[in-house]
Amino acid sequence: MSIRSAKPADVPAILQLIKDLAVYEKAPDAVKSTEENLRVALFGEEPKVFAHVAEDGGKIVGIAIWFLNYSTWMGTHGIYLEDLYVDPEFRGKGYGIALLKSLAKICVERGYSRLQWWVLDWNEPSINFYKSLGAVPMDEWTVFRVDGQALQNLGKVTA
Amino acid sequence: MSIRSAKPADVPAILQLIKDLAVYEKAPDAVKSTEENLRVALFGEEPKVFAHVAEDGGKIVGIAIWFLNYSTWMGTHGIYLEDLYVDPEFRGKGYGIALLKSLAKICVERGYSRLQWWVLDWNEPSINFYKSLGAVPMDEWTVFRVDGQALQNLGKVTA
Repeated sequence: MSIRSAKPADVPAILQLIKDLAVYEKAPDAVKSTEENLRVALFGEEPKVFAHVAEDGGKIVGIAIWFLNYSTWMGTHGIYLEDLYVDPEFRGKGYGIALLKSLAKICVERGYSRLQWWVLDWNEPSINFYKSLGAVPMDEWTVFRVDGQALQNLGKVTA
Repeated sequence: MSIRSAKPADVPAILQLIKDLAVYEKAPDAVKSTEENLRVALFGEEPKVFAHVAEDGGKIVGIAIWFLNYSTWMGTHGIYLEDLYVDPEFRGKGYGIALLKSLAKICVERGYSRLQWWVLDWNEPSINFYKSLGAVPMDEWTVFRVDGQALQNLGKVTA
């Protein structure tokens, strides 16, 4: 089993898995990202988003896309896992946990205090898997989002 | 009303407001952060967390602490607002919305597609305020967290 940091040549395979995940999350048309902007984000100057991949016989079969968060309480950075996905044909081989472990290892090595991600509430298999690893649902909290026209309106300078 | 990027000299006032927010969130002992690690995080080399402050008569009365996130669907960065807090004595003057608008403005200028933050479910005044700005609760999702001993265990290399 091979888990490693992504390389520029992995971008097409990573984007395909991002699209596959969107289908699984019932949002098949949600992915506006292109190979080009993914390449710039992951491998441009001073990247602020990162990827680990799981490789099986030379094929990219799993991805973890992540970035740094920060806890004002702990006074430390942490890792926020944006996407974790393993090709269904390659499940049950431990790639998902291996990807999570690789991020947990970075946290431990760098003194980061938290590894976080979010999960769709109906995704019970994943929720049970995460709980088995000691992850705790932050049930008291709800994420709010402003985007689209509401974001444009909020960003307007008013006199 | 003055909203501006934080300066190193603001660190003590920022930390005090972080502590005040923790009290409001019913976690008065949660803040392990110190002036020193806050200073390094905000003003060290290549900072990955940022602060805006609201100033009233030379006094720091509000803070927005934020970092960059990334959407694999949109293929763009966005802003994640970690802490938003206004000193209760200075509420109702528009500092909260002015801080949010300053971050929305950065999103619009840089082409970021989302401004996000999370809210405690019992914090109804804030929830109503956010909804009035066009923010949408991501009710379908739950954040999971691994920290402490569980994170150490997950980060261990196994043979």
